[in-house]
Amino acid sequence: MYRAPVREVRFVLEELLGAQRLAASGALGDYSNELAQSVLEEAARFAENVLEPLNRPGDVQGARWTENGVVTAPGFREAYQQFVAGGWPALGAATEFGGQHTPRVLNSAVGEFWGSANLAFKLGPMLTHGAVHALELCGSPAQKRTFLPPMVRGEWTGTMVLTEPQAGSDLGQVRTRAVAAGDHYRLFGQKIFITWGDHDLTSNTIHMVLGRVEGAPPGVKGISLFIVPKVLVGADGSLGARNEVRCLSIERKLGIHASPTCVLAFGEKEGAVAYLVGEPGRGLEYMFIMMNSARLSVGSEGYAVGERAYQRALEWARTRVQGKPRTAPGPVTIIQHPDVRRMLLTMKSQTEAARALTLYGAFQFDLAEYDASEQVRTAARARGELLTPIIKGWCTESGNEVAAIGLQVHGGMGYIEETGAAQYVRDVRITTIYEGTTGIQSNDLIGRKLARDRGAAMSALLAEMERDLGAIAGSDATLETVRKSALEAVGLLARATRSLLESLASEPQRALAVSVPYLKLCGYVAGGWLLARSAAIAAGRLDGNEREFYAAKVRTAAFYAAQVLPTAAALARVVESGGASVIGTDPALL
Amino acid sequence: MYRAPVREVRFVLEELLGAQRLAASGALGDYSNELAQSVLEEAARFAENVLEPLNRPGDVQGARWTENGVVTAPGFREAYQQFVAGGWPALGAATEFGGQHTPRVLNSAVGEFWGSANLAFKLGPMLTHGAVHALELCGSPAQKRTFLPPMVRGEWTGTMVLTEPQAGSDLGQVRTRAVAAGDHYRLFGQKIFITWGDHDLTSNTIHMVLGRVEGAPPGVKGISLFIVPKVLVGADGSLGARNEVRCLSIERKLGIHASPTCVLAFGEKEGAVAYLVGEPGRGLEYMFIMMNSARLSVGSEGYAVGERAYQRALEWARTRVQGKPRTAPGPVTIIQHPDVRRMLLTMKSQTEAARALTLYGAFQFDLAEYDASEQVRTAARARGELLTPIIKGWCTESGNEVAAIGLQVHGGMGYIEETGAAQYVRDVRITTIYEGTTGIQSNDLIGRKLARDRGAAMSALLAEMERDLGAIAGSDATLETVRKSALEAVGLLARATRSLLESLASEPQRALAVSVPYLKLCGYVAGGWLLARSAAIAAGRLDGNEREFYAAKVRTAAFYAAQVLPTAAALARVVESGGASVIGTDPALL
Repeated sequence: MYRAPVREVRFVLEELLGAQRLAASGALGDYSNELAQSVLEEAARFAENVLEPLNRPGDVQGARWTENGVVTAPGFREAYQQFVAGGWPALGAATEFGGQHTPRVLNSAVGEFWGSANLAFKLGPMLTHGAVHALELCGSPAQKRTFLPPMVRGEWTGTMVLTEPQAGSDLGQVRTRAVAAGDHYRLFGQKIFITWGDHDLTSNTIHMVLGRVEGAPPGVKGISLFIVPKVLVGADGSLGARNEVRCLSIERKLGIHASPTCVLAFGEKEGAVAYLVGEPGRGLEYMFIMMNSARLSVGSEGYAVGERAYQRALEWARTRVQGKPRTAPGPVTIIQHPDVRRMLLTMKSQTEAARALTLYGAFQFDLAEYDASEQVRTAARARGELLTPIIKGWCTESGNEVAAIGLQVHGGMGYIEETGAAQYVRDVRITTIYEGTTGIQSNDLIGRKLARDRGAAMSALLAEMERDLGAIAGSDATLETVRKSALEAVGLLARATRSLLESLASEPQRALAVSVPYLKLCGYVAGGWLLARSAAIAAGRLDGNEREFYAAKVRTAAFYAAQVLPTAAALARVVESGGASVIGTDPALL
Repeated sequence: MYRAPVREVRFVLEELLGAQRLAASGALGDYSNELAQSVLEEAARFAENVLEPLNRPGDVQGARWTENGVVTAPGFREAYQQFVAGGWPALGAATEFGGQHTPRVLNSAVGEFWGSANLAFKLGPMLTHGAVHALELCGSPAQKRTFLPPMVRGEWTGTMVLTEPQAGSDLGQVRTRAVAAGDHYRLFGQKIFITWGDHDLTSNTIHMVLGRVEGAPPGVKGISLFIVPKVLVGADGSLGARNEVRCLSIERKLGIHASPTCVLAFGEKEGAVAYLVGEPGRGLEYMFIMMNSARLSVGSEGYAVGERAYQRALEWARTRVQGKPRTAPGPVTIIQHPDVRRMLLTMKSQTEAARALTLYGAFQFDLAEYDASEQVRTAARARGELLTPIIKGWCTESGNEVAAIGLQVHGGMGYIEETGAAQYVRDVRITTIYEGTTGIQSNDLIGRKLARDRGAAMSALLAEMERDLGAIAGSDATLETVRKSALEAVGLLARATRSLLESLASEPQRALAVSVPYLKLCGYVAGGWLLARSAAIAAGRLDGNEREFYAAKVRTAAFYAAQVLPTAAALARVVESGGASVIGTDPALL
């Protein structure tokens, strides 16, 4: 049974981040801890009662392709109607178009619950949210008026239509062709890997499509962004004829079976009616608005599935009786075995570290938008951008590890599908791939984020981590160990960063060969910093009426420091000396 | 397309281990490099041409339960008939019963090819082999005469029937009941997780079943081993009536779909006819004969699937064009991207390390049986037993990691089932679980193997690794780096071992809490030692006509030293300080 970790999230929002300071901004004047709590509790109920029960049936039955379009798994239509009735699609959107204008950090927190309860379901609203965000920022006033209100209400969904067979990570290879036709374009091309690209949940779907206006320059600079509605929309917002968009097939995937991954054909005859967004040639730039927002969201999927896997493994470990340790008089529940407890603590500590880091990252974007001080806004944006690839890459890699451990805790039962542990392993496997693989994230991190300011944003982060950890005081020995480990790890990251910046300047290929280890190093160290801060806060509250909750926070941080954070030493070493072993190896020798 | 790595295996057998010295033993007088090579080449052809083509169809269609028994996936019957016609089941069995009496190291090497090409298929013969081995050692002369020849010919298969719902890792909980009935017993009980427990490949299946004679003491000491044929066998070897064994259902699993995992009911009416093996109450001891042999074999499955995943990822990386690095004039195959090459080298180096370690371990059991010197035999047995849990645990954990990277190399295509990369991830996932989870292996390693001789066998291994690495000389800078890294890692393992032995004596629960990190540490270090030795051999042969092959060996070791072996530092630290963080955490706080 899934229980959304409302108290854990509130700890991060209220106690670790102090998100209530957003209320000081005029734009978010009504934000408060109480408001956040009530949203979280309502979301928890929806996730637990509506989405979770559909997770396994959705996996078993999946979405189904038919000639008339994709039919979603049983129960998904009803669940989506309830989702709309609850006003959830409006979370985070501008009030002007019917949105609720909640801060990003709260939206992220709620997104975790959707992802834990039903990752396949969550992807539809996530992509709609990305499309809404892009339209808000780049659409014309008329486009916004036409498309945004129904999307914000959830009556229509949105998609991101990027990939073509020859253009995956390398979007410069996009070939979809747009021909001018008066005030609009006609689009021709085939797209693949379109998440929720077709379905029966809503009366319309607004595709945000990358294409190339005839005569545009080759490569990235020739790519534009288009709106292509599945059903054409009249000036008064009424639905008209079907546009020329057709779902040719859906993929048979390892997981997220209830999320239809579509091959879409645009313009099989006269061309799909398409509306240019913003200026021609800036499509990729606009798409990255959606993409970056989606990347944070995918990062949260990593630990969302991890949290769900943890809860299931914990339940199993508390009830399964097997084996008799020397210290016990008879058979015990397996949670009594040290190795099982080690596995559970690995899951719990990595999940909490990833949650803290992701919400911290999301909060930076809120500060960047709403803080009164321009200096704070600028610094927060730089930090949020720096952290985005780290969050996407590390939280999803870690989520895969956590889900795999969850299966392992179940022993042989874990390998049987009906236990449910295997689904999390299959579902979470996509998260290190879509919206940019971990390799792509690491390229972004070092090739763009580190290179563009020569490590300034990273230096600022390192300095702040050191300052924070230096300020942790107290006589508690456990806390002191946690603090020291985190501080040592920050030192390792600082040294590895210097080394990486040097090789980035002198021999970029060598730096790229250790970019993923560097990204992971950043994740482990930042996670250690935030868990140490959490432990310091918790250590001061052990006297209150939530003693167990705060005691657990300290223990989790202690475990992370002792058993997880040592990985940083290995990764730092790889970053400092590992690149040559890759670059020095001729591909012919593989 | 799968290509069995015959040259790689020959390198380990001939150049690294010098397995030809087994010929000096009278019992294996006809063993030679040429003999081994011809067996390997024939096995390679069978694996590539017969087993590999059935791997994906077997996954998609799976084995099917019917009222009249399990129907195997299309093509499996024919493949099995060819397997029998080729004489493959006889590999390793005693000549007295029609076996070919090849050394264990060669059987292991061949087993890799079966596991790479078709893991689901491989499990049937593997379990038959285990049953044959147990009967050879513990069966009565009459039992051997009746059951062994058809099993060695492959006309009948064998199974290991251990698990019951309440008795998984903890076999002391077995309840299956045996009632004496003259010269035999009647067996009553239900067993689960029986691999290849029912099928249509052969006319009979010989179940090796754990049960409890009525009135036997509770716990492990009351468990006996029984032979329960699916079809009763007359004194002349002819098949008679069906015994009371019925397959109630098969499991729906994450992977190895073509391997039927059965729920078996014994004795639904009058009791299944069962023959006691050896003495009553020694069942678990006998079962461990099969189990230990199976554990090495499962270790090889880890890197077998890893090797297959590597070959597929390499093929993809050599052909998929995507992205343009700064150093290239146009789009390139993705193997040119440093991060992709890093992933491939991780797969390759871990696979080679695991193969070297597993074959080294198997070879110890050959030496233990056939070497002329009693001293060598004793030492080899101790080392083989010490390494068994390390091989089982580490090679399978590593195989999971390698298969996951293989999927990642494919990007979005990896998540689509028809690409084939996902199947390896699903199939290999069982290997860290069956025949004892990694946690069980680590308990065996520290609670039994280390504790029983207070680390003597481990000390001997550490000393030999140090000696070996000390003896590597030469002016080559790469080789020197490899040697130094390996030596440093051996030092870390030595220190961690001392620390573990201390806490094992004073606070065993604390030691158990870091037993899996310790097991992994052993694997990484031993792998580093064998790759360093391999590199030293290869470095001396760069002038010959296999320059590329040997150059690759050196590069692989260099990568492992720079990017894989640093993990040892992290694990050593966890072993030395991580246990308290687990034991100090009250399960109620999870």
